[in-house]
Amino acid sequence: MNCVQEARVTTPLDTLLSRLGTIVPPRAIVTDPAAIAPWLTDWRGRYHGVAHALFEPATTAEASAIVAAAHAAGVPLVPQGGNTSMVGGATPPADGTAAILSLRRMARVRAMGEGQAVAEAGVILSQLHDAAAATGQRFPLSLGAKGSATVGGLVSTNAGGTQVLRWGNMRALVLGVEAVLADGAVHDGLSALPKDNRGYDLTQLLVGAEGTLGIVTAATLRLVPAVAARAVAWVGVNSPEAAMALLRHARAVTNAVESFELLPAESLAAVLAHIPGTRAPLAGAHPWHVLVELAVAAGEDDPAPLLERLLADAIERGLAADATLAASEAQADAFWRIRESISEAERATGPAAQHDISVPVATMPRFMIEAAAACEARFPGTRASGFGHLGDGNVHFHVRAPAGRDAGRWYAEDVPVVSAFVHDLVTAAGGSISAEHGIGQMKRGELERLSSPARMAALRAIKRAFDPGELLNPGKLVALAPSRATQ
Amino acid sequence: MNCVQEARVTTPLDTLLSRLGTIVPPRAIVTDPAAIAPWLTDWRGRYHGVAHALFEPATTAEASAIVAAAHAAGVPLVPQGGNTSMVGGATPPADGTAAILSLRRMARVRAMGEGQAVAEAGVILSQLHDAAAATGQRFPLSLGAKGSATVGGLVSTNAGGTQVLRWGNMRALVLGVEAVLADGAVHDGLSALPKDNRGYDLTQLLVGAEGTLGIVTAATLRLVPAVAARAVAWVGVNSPEAAMALLRHARAVTNAVESFELLPAESLAAVLAHIPGTRAPLAGAHPWHVLVELAVAAGEDDPAPLLERLLADAIERGLAADATLAASEAQADAFWRIRESISEAERATGPAAQHDISVPVATMPRFMIEAAAACEARFPGTRASGFGHLGDGNVHFHVRAPAGRDAGRWYAEDVPVVSAFVHDLVTAAGGSISAEHGIGQMKRGELERLSSPARMAALRAIKRAFDPGELLNPGKLVALAPSRATQ
Repeated sequence: MNCVQEARVTTPLDTLLSRLGTIVPPRAIVTDPAAIAPWLTDWRGRYHGVAHALFEPATTAEASAIVAAAHAAGVPLVPQGGNTSMVGGATPPADGTAAILSLRRMARVRAMGEGQAVAEAGVILSQLHDAAAATGQRFPLSLGAKGSATVGGLVSTNAGGTQVLRWGNMRALVLGVEAVLADGAVHDGLSALPKDNRGYDLTQLLVGAEGTLGIVTAATLRLVPAVAARAVAWVGVNSPEAAMALLRHARAVTNAVESFELLPAESLAAVLAHIPGTRAPLAGAHPWHVLVELAVAAGEDDPAPLLERLLADAIERGLAADATLAASEAQADAFWRIRESISEAERATGPAAQHDISVPVATMPRFMIEAAAACEARFPGTRASGFGHLGDGNVHFHVRAPAGRDAGRWYAEDVPVVSAFVHDLVTAAGGSISAEHGIGQMKRGELERLSSPARMAALRAIKRAFDPGELLNPGKLVALAPSRATQ
Repeated sequence: MNCVQEARVTTPLDTLLSRLGTIVPPRAIVTDPAAIAPWLTDWRGRYHGVAHALFEPATTAEASAIVAAAHAAGVPLVPQGGNTSMVGGATPPADGTAAILSLRRMARVRAMGEGQAVAEAGVILSQLHDAAAATGQRFPLSLGAKGSATVGGLVSTNAGGTQVLRWGNMRALVLGVEAVLADGAVHDGLSALPKDNRGYDLTQLLVGAEGTLGIVTAATLRLVPAVAARAVAWVGVNSPEAAMALLRHARAVTNAVESFELLPAESLAAVLAHIPGTRAPLAGAHPWHVLVELAVAAGEDDPAPLLERLLADAIERGLAADATLAASEAQADAFWRIRESISEAERATGPAAQHDISVPVATMPRFMIEAAAACEARFPGTRASGFGHLGDGNVHFHVRAPAGRDAGRWYAEDVPVVSAFVHDLVTAAGGSISAEHGIGQMKRGELERLSSPARMAALRAIKRAFDPGELLNPGKLVALAPSRATQ
């Protein structure tokens, strides 16, 4: 038998693993392929990466040691929280050079005070909600993935959701951050100071940086009083313009408008057709629908009569066609279930090109109508519509494939063209091609294509300043060399 | 007669001036020493610089051309608005190499819409107030220098004031910026998008950067409904802790608390002694005083009875000792005049070391008492106290010289030691040595001394990324080489 011994080259990862063995506890180092496998693919199954090691620090000191050692060895790190990115932001590159840095074991709520909490990166959003509730408070940001999404990911993606209208996005709720920088140094910026003019705002720079400038290990977050009572209504309206007028009316009357979500008749129809147990809140047909919620803290006026009066007045003024108030918490939940099932229901209706876009708030009603018409004219047989956070100037704009179009060919051939068309419209309207999901690996090419040279140069300069070796979340958001990645 | 012709070396400024002559209109170039002279000294007369040219672009294109040409010629530029910096942030260096870039001619309100305005850098704050008022709205930030301070300076220093409690500081009110970067490229970020996750937040990075990363030429600013009615009261309280409890009580009852300012008895006494026409709002003596204002928009409840009930309740609960509601707008103005005259009155009482500091809000009452006691113990004969924005965790903390101390020697010998002591206390409390005034040239040494290496490295990396040649506002905030500047 002819035995040939294979010559094995020592990789940077080998070097890192041998060094780390003496620095961090064994529990923080995972090399078993079976244990790593679940974290190599994004939750929608669109992106697949390769990584031969996964690090799980339990403390900031361990995270710092791992990053410092990876920096010294030249091993790129892909930070991961709940792995719920919509843009492939947490999936490692395919070349297998990077290791995953999971923050999931750093899951302690370090402090829970009046109006603020300090939570580690691995705290799951729903756990933060529970911890706040136990003190009569709440963290006013929620989203579909709340059972998986973690604080570190929410901070790093500047997450949005359905309460941005009232409380702002993650950026507005982050009062301070602790982060490990590229060389392993720890930036302690957790002290929450409403006024602090000691130079450039490092906190806001790290929020939304997708882990490409530093690894967020903890954050000081704003809390607000718990909801004592809410009132939820379903409203039929004639147009996005009418919905916007209704929102203006509501906000002029009360500052308790917690959510205001718009959806077209076809989104409702898709939900009713594909999601078991759902039913139409209103008897009549309306081209557009609004889900509105008022929420108040203890000691504030009951929102139900207020919402009822407000809607009666809106109908009288012609802003709304019909409306119904949820008569119970169960009915309120049922209304919300319709809203939260749109994506799932639309997936069941067939393939689509999805876009997470924003334009200046006042122009959104007109943009939604005109962009849909432009898409359908340009791509015959498609159906286009937007739904979502009208008051934030942010909708999820879907273009559904023509009937009978092969899904594989639609995604491979049509979607890039459709998306470029939609993004061009958005850019011409002064909008953003990523309102709340970020850039990740999915939108890098489009970001490059549609940003001014000044903006791209600034983004690259910042990346180079913090991570010249491109070791932090490589291949996401921006690369130092102009990218050719496309959506 | 013996004539010796002096050999004159061509300076970078000569090169710049000769080039610019063909690029921008003559009106944009000022070289008359008499016309430049007023802009070489800060308004308090503490900093003196030298500059042989002052540029006054009228448009973004002219500003861009000037910055590009200065970049090519290697001439540093010192941006100036109202020249009201408290930290020497707008005064050119003494070596005469830099030119001043005044934004005062860019004074157009470009757009005034519902909830937002686009204002050029040279718009004076009081002009912005007037323009907003003409549309039934207001820009909810004001400060003593409102007749001189400009939008560009307010943005670049992340200005504060007495309404931060309700509306946030400038950072919260800036929805977008237009800026000329170091090489003259224009970053157009004016489009106001509540949700925009296209990478690092350039807007928030430029806010508070003191003109060291780019020259802000215009900003999109948030407007809120005009004040329809206000109620102002003067309250005697026993301690900062009681004042904080009163604030919590007020905010639990109403969201109309527009301002809440705390001052010690000695500040009031100084005003009464030195500012003509002022009188004590309350008959009795109290160790601490609070000025509180509620403000409401049209259609909201009259704030006067609300404030009256709230204060009666506070007195009953022991949170306040005595209180009086301003019976007229004139009386409300008189109350405010006391608050706004503190600095002037304290200057009249003798020399002091002044500090613009913040600590986490909840700890400020205790910090004020303990820091004052520590200062008076460490520097016998001094008297220390803080006044100002209690609800923001920000007070102006003054340490007055011992009676009879020579002012010149106090400022030269004592103040640096006193300030270092105060800043050490602030840092130990997790606070900031610059709450709202910025770093400028005054606090560069202290910033360097008291920041973590990770923080300083990050500040320098950002500066290097945007302005590697240190041509934008040289000598302010941070230098690429560690600085030895001291306060």
